[in-house]
Amino acid sequence: MPPPAAVMSKWVYPFREGGESMRNLLGGKGAGSAEMTKAGMPVPPGFTITTAACLEYYANDKDFPAGLDAQVDVALAEVESAVGRRFGDPQNPLLVSVRSGARVSMPGMMDTVLNLGLNAATLEGLIAATGDARFGWDAYRRFIQGFGSIVLGVESHTFEDCIDEHKARLGVDQDTELSATDWQAVADDFRRIIRDATNAEFPDDPRRQLDHAIRAVFDSWFGRRAVDYRRVHGLPDDWGTAVNVQTMVFGNMGETSGTGVAFTRNPNTGERELFGEYLLNAQGEDVVAGVRTPTPIATLETSMPEVFGQFEDYATRLEQHYREMQDLEFTIEAGRLYMLQTRAGKRSPAAAVKIAVDLVREGVIDKTTAVQRVEPEQVGAVLHPRVDPAHWDHPIATGLNASPGAAHGQVVFTADEAAELADAAHPVILVRPETSPDDFHGMAVSAAILTARGGATSHAAIVARQLGIPAVVGCDALRLDLDAKQFTAHGVTVNAGDVITVDGTDGEVLTGALPLIPGSMTPELEELLSWADEIRRLSTWGNADTPEEAELAREHGAEGIGLCRTEHMFREGDRLPIVQEMILAETVEERQKALDRLLPIQREDFVGILRAMDGFPVVIRLLDPPLHEFLPDHEPLAAELATLTADDSDPERRAHLERMLRRVEEIQEVNPMLGLRGCRLGIQQPEVYEMQVRAIIEAALELSAAGLQPRPKIMIPLISHVNELRKVEGRLHAVADEVVQDKGATVSYEFGTMIEVPRACLTAGALAEVADFFSFGTNDLTQTTYGISRDDAEGKFLIDYVESEILPSNPFQVMDPDGVGALLRLAVEQGRAADPDIEMGICGEHGGDPASIGICEQLGLDYVSASPFRIPVSRMAAAHARLAGIERDR
Amino acid sequence: MPPPAAVMSKWVYPFREGGESMRNLLGGKGAGSAEMTKAGMPVPPGFTITTAACLEYYANDKDFPAGLDAQVDVALAEVESAVGRRFGDPQNPLLVSVRSGARVSMPGMMDTVLNLGLNAATLEGLIAATGDARFGWDAYRRFIQGFGSIVLGVESHTFEDCIDEHKARLGVDQDTELSATDWQAVADDFRRIIRDATNAEFPDDPRRQLDHAIRAVFDSWFGRRAVDYRRVHGLPDDWGTAVNVQTMVFGNMGETSGTGVAFTRNPNTGERELFGEYLLNAQGEDVVAGVRTPTPIATLETSMPEVFGQFEDYATRLEQHYREMQDLEFTIEAGRLYMLQTRAGKRSPAAAVKIAVDLVREGVIDKTTAVQRVEPEQVGAVLHPRVDPAHWDHPIATGLNASPGAAHGQVVFTADEAAELADAAHPVILVRPETSPDDFHGMAVSAAILTARGGATSHAAIVARQLGIPAVVGCDALRLDLDAKQFTAHGVTVNAGDVITVDGTDGEVLTGALPLIPGSMTPELEELLSWADEIRRLSTWGNADTPEEAELAREHGAEGIGLCRTEHMFREGDRLPIVQEMILAETVEERQKALDRLLPIQREDFVGILRAMDGFPVVIRLLDPPLHEFLPDHEPLAAELATLTADDSDPERRAHLERMLRRVEEIQEVNPMLGLRGCRLGIQQPEVYEMQVRAIIEAALELSAAGLQPRPKIMIPLISHVNELRKVEGRLHAVADEVVQDKGATVSYEFGTMIEVPRACLTAGALAEVADFFSFGTNDLTQTTYGISRDDAEGKFLIDYVESEILPSNPFQVMDPDGVGALLRLAVEQGRAADPDIEMGICGEHGGDPASIGICEQLGLDYVSASPFRIPVSRMAAAHARLAGIERDR
Repeated sequence: MPPPAAVMSKWVYPFREGGESMRNLLGGKGAGSAEMTKAGMPVPPGFTITTAACLEYYANDKDFPAGLDAQVDVALAEVESAVGRRFGDPQNPLLVSVRSGARVSMPGMMDTVLNLGLNAATLEGLIAATGDARFGWDAYRRFIQGFGSIVLGVESHTFEDCIDEHKARLGVDQDTELSATDWQAVADDFRRIIRDATNAEFPDDPRRQLDHAIRAVFDSWFGRRAVDYRRVHGLPDDWGTAVNVQTMVFGNMGETSGTGVAFTRNPNTGERELFGEYLLNAQGEDVVAGVRTPTPIATLETSMPEVFGQFEDYATRLEQHYREMQDLEFTIEAGRLYMLQTRAGKRSPAAAVKIAVDLVREGVIDKTTAVQRVEPEQVGAVLHPRVDPAHWDHPIATGLNASPGAAHGQVVFTADEAAELADAAHPVILVRPETSPDDFHGMAVSAAILTARGGATSHAAIVARQLGIPAVVGCDALRLDLDAKQFTAHGVTVNAGDVITVDGTDGEVLTGALPLIPGSMTPELEELLSWADEIRRLSTWGNADTPEEAELAREHGAEGIGLCRTEHMFREGDRLPIVQEMILAETVEERQKALDRLLPIQREDFVGILRAMDGFPVVIRLLDPPLHEFLPDHEPLAAELATLTADDSDPERRAHLERMLRRVEEIQEVNPMLGLRGCRLGIQQPEVYEMQVRAIIEAALELSAAGLQPRPKIMIPLISHVNELRKVEGRLHAVADEVVQDKGATVSYEFGTMIEVPRACLTAGALAEVADFFSFGTNDLTQTTYGISRDDAEGKFLIDYVESEILPSNPFQVMDPDGVGALLRLAVEQGRAADPDIEMGICGEHGGDPASIGICEQLGLDYVSASPFRIPVSRMAAAHARLAGIERDR
Repeated sequence: MPPPAAVMSKWVYPFREGGESMRNLLGGKGAGSAEMTKAGMPVPPGFTITTAACLEYYANDKDFPAGLDAQVDVALAEVESAVGRRFGDPQNPLLVSVRSGARVSMPGMMDTVLNLGLNAATLEGLIAATGDARFGWDAYRRFIQGFGSIVLGVESHTFEDCIDEHKARLGVDQDTELSATDWQAVADDFRRIIRDATNAEFPDDPRRQLDHAIRAVFDSWFGRRAVDYRRVHGLPDDWGTAVNVQTMVFGNMGETSGTGVAFTRNPNTGERELFGEYLLNAQGEDVVAGVRTPTPIATLETSMPEVFGQFEDYATRLEQHYREMQDLEFTIEAGRLYMLQTRAGKRSPAAAVKIAVDLVREGVIDKTTAVQRVEPEQVGAVLHPRVDPAHWDHPIATGLNASPGAAHGQVVFTADEAAELADAAHPVILVRPETSPDDFHGMAVSAAILTARGGATSHAAIVARQLGIPAVVGCDALRLDLDAKQFTAHGVTVNAGDVITVDGTDGEVLTGALPLIPGSMTPELEELLSWADEIRRLSTWGNADTPEEAELAREHGAEGIGLCRTEHMFREGDRLPIVQEMILAETVEERQKALDRLLPIQREDFVGILRAMDGFPVVIRLLDPPLHEFLPDHEPLAAELATLTADDSDPERRAHLERMLRRVEEIQEVNPMLGLRGCRLGIQQPEVYEMQVRAIIEAALELSAAGLQPRPKIMIPLISHVNELRKVEGRLHAVADEVVQDKGATVSYEFGTMIEVPRACLTAGALAEVADFFSFGTNDLTQTTYGISRDDAEGKFLIDYVESEILPSNPFQVMDPDGVGALLRLAVEQGRAADPDIEMGICGEHGGDPASIGICEQLGLDYVSASPFRIPVSRMAAAHARLAGIERDR
C-alpha cells in the first residue's frame, strides 16, 4: 500500500521518465531532455526537479519540500550508476550542470552552472581521468567562477579583473596562454574573492554545492528581472521553474571534442537548412563569449562526417517530432555526440512567417497552427525595415527589443543635439543612459533610440513605439561617458558622430551603416494572412482620408474604410481660404456662399475615395474639430496686426485681419476638446453638414451612374444625447433623400454615429434606435473616460505613470479593459438589445493593437479599423483573437 | 341585463353623482363641484364630461366617443328639470358655462365660456325673464366675444378694438355708458367679425354651441402651452381633461347680485382669515379684468350679513373637508349665494410654510402631510427677497415665474446698456423681447430680467436661474418698442430709466420700487424643516471654503462640510506670492521652502473650519486645479515684459517676469480640465499634498488638545485608476501617522476620493477597497460623461440645447439620470459590494437641486452637500425624496 500522496509527492523525475506532455511540471528544458532520451538519442543522463517543488519551496517559506533531498539522492544514484561515476568520488567523479527551466524560455532566470561537483579531491580524479591538468584546473576555475557569480551572487567582473591581473603579471594576452599552474593560481584567488565577498568558505562538498544551486534556481524565479518579464508578458507567477541536473560532457577534451548550436532552419530567412556553428575543443560558454570564431555547422560534414550524419538525423527527427523548427545544443566528447537541448528556435519575424507557411506546405502542421505560430506584431515587423541578413554582423551589444524596425545614423548623446543635427539626409541615433520627458523633442526627430537602462515600459520604449521608430533599451553592456561623448560596449568604443545601426526588432546594436531591407509584403506573408482571413470573425478595415490612402488600405487587405476624416480635406492649401471665409461669414447667406464653393471640391474628394473602395463600405465622418483649428492662432495674428497698424499700408488686409482676430477671440475655448465641435457645431450651423451630405450623395450618384457600387456610411460625431442624433440625422436624411430624388436615381447610404463620450455608451440603446451603425472612437472615449487630455497628458505625466507602473500600459495604445472596455461592453449590450443588426466597429489606434483587438473580439464587434500599414497586423490579431475565443468557449 | 360596458361607457356624470375620489376621472373642478353638491351647498346644477371621454376623443381621431352625445342630452335634461329652464327655450332659456378641468390646475387649458345657449331667440327670453334689455344684450355680446375668441380662435383684440370704435363713435369712455342698443350694435359687429374670420356663420343652435365648446376643451389639451406646461412639470399626456357644463348664475342682475373669489386663509402671509374680494352687480370676468376695483370680502359682512355668514360657514366646512386652504369662487344672484368652485388655493411660499405648520398645530393634518405640502423650491423662495405683501399692488403684467426672488431697478432695453449702467447703487432691470447668448454680459449684471417671449426653459429663464437673479419671462402683455425705448402693458407705458419691480417668485411686473422683504428663516420654516429632518434619510451637508461659510452652513442646518476647496486658500492676497514661488521653484528644496511658509497659514485655515464644525465631519479636498491658475495669463505677462524690456529700468523684476513667463509657457495646456491637476499633480509633486495633510492633522491635533472633536476627512481629487489612489493615499497616510506620532496624541481622520471621471465610477469596487469615503463630484463628472466643458458650453450651445428641447434640462443644474445617474448607480453598487460601510455623498450644485436629490435618495447615498443657502432646500427635498421612496416601495 503506498503512503499518502502528501507525504510522497514526486518532486524529481529522471529524464527517462518525463516527456513533452509534462512540460508544465518539468519546464521546457526538462521536457525536451526527457523527450530526446525516450527517442533514444544520446542525452547525458540527468533528472529534473519539478516546478511543483519550486512552488512548494515558496509555500514553505523557502524550505525545500519534504522528500526532495531524498529523491535527489535517489536520482543522483541512478545517474551515477548509468555513467559509472560517483558524485564526490576522488577517483572517478561525476560532474553535473545545473540549469533553470520554466514552462517557456524566460530572460532573467538563472544561468547554467557547469562542472558542479568539483573540489580539490574530485579535481584530482578529473585530471587523472582525462590526463590533462590544464583542462582540469581550467574546468575548476570555470566552476568556481560560475558558481560564485551565478549561485553566490559575487559580481562577475571581479573574476574577469582577476584573470586580467594574472595575464598582466604573466605578460600574456590570451586565456589559452595560461598554463595549469596559472589556472591553479587563478582558482586560489577566486576562492579568496568568494570568501571575502560572502564571509564564508567556498562550499567543497558536491552535495552541498548542488543544494546551493537548486536553491539559487528557485530564488531566481522571483528575481527582479524575471518578475518584470512576466509582468510585461502577462505570465503568471504560479508557474514556477524546474531545475535540471545533468551529467557534464566535455567539448574541450581535444580536437575530437567540440560543442555547438544549430537551428533546423535558418532563423533569419526561414530557409530549410541546418543553420548553426560549432567550436572544436571548446565548452559551450566559449561559443557564446565570441572569443574564438565558430565554424559553420556545414563544415562538420567534412571534419566529422559520422557525427554530422547522426546530428542531421536527430535534427530532422526532432523537428518532425515537435512539428516546429528546433534550436539544438550539442557537445561532442571524444568523438561521441551528445544532445544537450532541443527547443523551439527563436527566429526573425520574416523567418517566422516563412517557416510557418513552409511547414504547412510540407504537411507538418495545419493552417491554423501556422497562424498561431506567428505573433501579430511579427507581421508588423516584417513590414518594418530590417537589417539585411546577408550583411548581418555580430552586434556590439544587445538589449531589449523595445520598438521594432531598424535604422542607422550618427550617434548623438543629447536630445538638443538630436534636434539640432537631425534631418532626412543626416539621420541621428539618440543614445542616452535613459530618457525623460525633457528629451522628447530630440527623440521625435531621431532615426532610432538606444538606452543603457530601462525595460519594455521605460519612457524610451513607450515613446519610441508611439513615434514608430526603432529602439533598443536596457542595453546593459553600454558604458556611457557623456562628458567624453562616447560609449563602449564589449570593448568597442563609439564616439559622437560615428554611425551605428540599431535593430529594434532583434534588440541589437551594430557598428556602421548596415544595409537595410525595407519592410514589404512577401508571398508567404500574403498566404499566411489569407489563412488568418479564413479564421478571423472580425472584419478588418482601414482609416483613410484620401483616395491614395484608401488604395493603400485596399492593398493591405482593408475590407472597408472605418474612418474618413473630412476635416483633413478642409485644410489643404486651396480650400483653407474658403473654409476661413465660411467661418468669418456674418450671415447665413455669406456662409452658404462659401459652402457652395466647397461643395464641388468635397464631391471630388468623395468620388475619389468611394471609387477606390468600389463595393466596400466607407465611413465618412462629418466635420468634427472646433472651427478655430482652421484659423490662425491668436498671438501671431495679434502680432501681425500690431505691425500692420503701425505701418498702415494695406487697409483692406488690416480689416481682414481684424475681422479674423475678432472671430478667433469669439470662438476661443478653454477646453476645445470638450467644446463646440462635432454634432454640436452641426446643430448650430447645419449648413456645413448639409453641404457635406450633399457632396457625399452626389458623389455616390455619380459613381453609381458609372456602374460602380459606392457604399457611403455617413457618421455623425460627438453624440452624447439621442436627441442630438435625432435632430442631425433627421435633417440630413431629408437632404440626402432630396438629392437622390432630384437625380431620380437610387443609391445606398446609411447614417450612423461615432460613440466617443461615456454618455453615448451609457445610452447606446436609444442611439441604436436611430443609428444604422456605431463606430467607437476609442481615442476620445479614452480621454473622456479617464478625464485625460492626450495632448497634455502623454508628455507630462502619462508616460511617467506607465514607467512607475501606476498604469499597466498607455491606454491610448492598449485599450483599457476596465474603464473603456466596460463602457464598450455596456454599449454593445444595449445597442444589440435595441437593434440586433446594428453594425459596430472601432476606429483609431486601438484598431491596430493586438491586445485591443482581443477585447473587440470578446465584445463581438463587427470590425476594427486601423491605419493602412497596421491592417496586416489587425488581420493576424483578429485571427488570434478568434482562436483564443474558441479556446475560451471550450 | 345591462348592455356590454364597451357600448355603454359612462362619459358623463351629473354633479350629484361625482366626488373627490373621482378626481382623476372628473378633473379637479368637476370633483370639487360634485363634492360641494353632495355636501348640500348651493352649486348651480351641472355635469362633467370625463377625462376618459377626452382620451377616447383622441383615440377616435378626434371624434366624440360613442354614446357621449346621448349622455350629454340626458344630463342636460336633468339640469333643465332641476332649474326649470330649457336649453334653447325662447321663453325660459337655460344658459350654461363650459369649463375645462384637468386633474390638476394647468395653465394653457381652455378658458371659461359663459352664457352658452344664447341666440337671438333665447336672448328675448333672457330679457323677458330679467326685464333688463341692457343686461341681455351685454350678456349676449359677452357670449359671442368669449365663444368667438376662446372656442373659434378669433383674435381677442379684434373684439376689444370693435368696442373701442363704438365708444369713440358714441364719444364715451366707459363700458357702463353703453346702452342696450349700443350693445346690440356691438353684438351685430361681433357676429360679422366672426363670419369674416371663420368663413362661417356664428352657430346659433345651443346644442351645436355646446358641441363646439366641448370639442374646444378637448383640443386645448394638446395645445402648445398646455403641452409645454406638462413637459416642464413632468406631467403625463394621458391624463386628459374633463369638461364641466354648469347652469349660469348671474352676479350682474342688480345690487343684490355680485360675484367674488376668496381664500380660506391669506395666500400671501398664510394668516387664518377669509381673504378675497367681490364686486356687486358684476360677472366674474369683471373681477379679473380689474376695470372696477373690487371690495374686500370682509365688507360683505356688513352689506349682506346673511350671505356672508353662509359663505363663511361653507368656507370653514370646505377647508375642514379638504384639510387644505381653499380658493373659492361664488356668485350671488338676486340675494342668493351660489358656490361655483372650490380648489386648493395657490399661495406664496411664505404662506405655504405657515399654512402647512398651522394646519398641523390645528390638528388638521399630520407633520408628514405638512412637509409634503411645501415644495423644496418654496423653501428656497422664502429665503429669497420678496415684495412686501403690505405694499403689494396690482401688477401691470404677469408672466412666467422663471426665477424666484424680487428686485427693482431702472429699465434698460439692451445688454450693453445694462453692462454700462448697472452698479450696486443703480440696479437695472433688463427688458428684452427674449434673450440670447449675446446678452449674457448684460444679464449677469442686472438685478432682474423681464422678457415678452419664452417659456420656463427659454434662454432668459435658464440663465437667470443660473445667475440666481429674479426673472419673469413670456410676459405676453408686454408691447416692446425698442426704438422708442419703452414698453406698454395693459395700457401702462414704461420708459427706459423708469423704475419697476420684478417679482420672479410670482411672475409679476409692478411699477415703481416696491418695498422688498429680504429672504429669511421664519419660526414656522424652522419648525417645518425640523419635521423634514425627522423624515429624511439623506444627511444634508454644506460646501464651505472658509470658517465664515462653515458657520453659515451650520446655521442652515448643515450636518457636515461635503466640500472644502483648499485652492481658494491659495489664492488669497498674501498667499498667492508664496504659491507662485512654489510653482516657480526649480528644485525640490526651493519648492519645500515655499511650502514651509504656507504650512502655518494652511493650518490656521483648517483650525478655523474644523472649529466651526466641531463634532461634524469636514471633507477637505487637496489641491485640485492646474498650477497655471495661480500664475498670470500669458498675453498680459508677455505684454508687460515687452514694455519692461524696452525700458530696462528694473533688471530684477524683468528676471522674475521672464522666469514667470517661461513657467507659464511650460505648464500651458490645451485642455486644462483634462490635464495635469488633482492627484496627477499630487503624484508628480508630492510635497504640496504632504504639506496640506500635515496642516490638516496639526490643526486637528491642536483642536483636539483644546477639547474639541475635529473630524477631518481628507479627499484626493481626480482619481481615475486605483493605483493613483494607492500611491497618494499610502504616502499621505504615512505623513499623517508621522505627525500624530510626533505629537504623541490621537485624532480621527479618514482618506477618501472624489469620484469625478467616468473611469472612477466604472472601477469603484477597486477604489472602495482603498478609500474610506466617496464624494461624487457631479460637476466634473457631468463634463466628462457628456464630453462637455462647462466653461465653453453653457454660453455657446448648452442653453440653446435646452431651449430647443434637445436636452430636457441643463445637466449641470439637474442631474442627468441616464448618463451621470447610470454611472453613479454602477459606482454605488460596486463600491458597496466591496465595502458595505463606505460613506458616499455628492458635493456640487446637484446637491441643492431637488430632482437631483431625488436621484441621490434612490441611489442610497449617505449625504448631499450644497452651498450654505441651499441647505434648507436640500433638507426639504431630502424629506420629499424619502417620502417618494416609501411610496415607491409600497
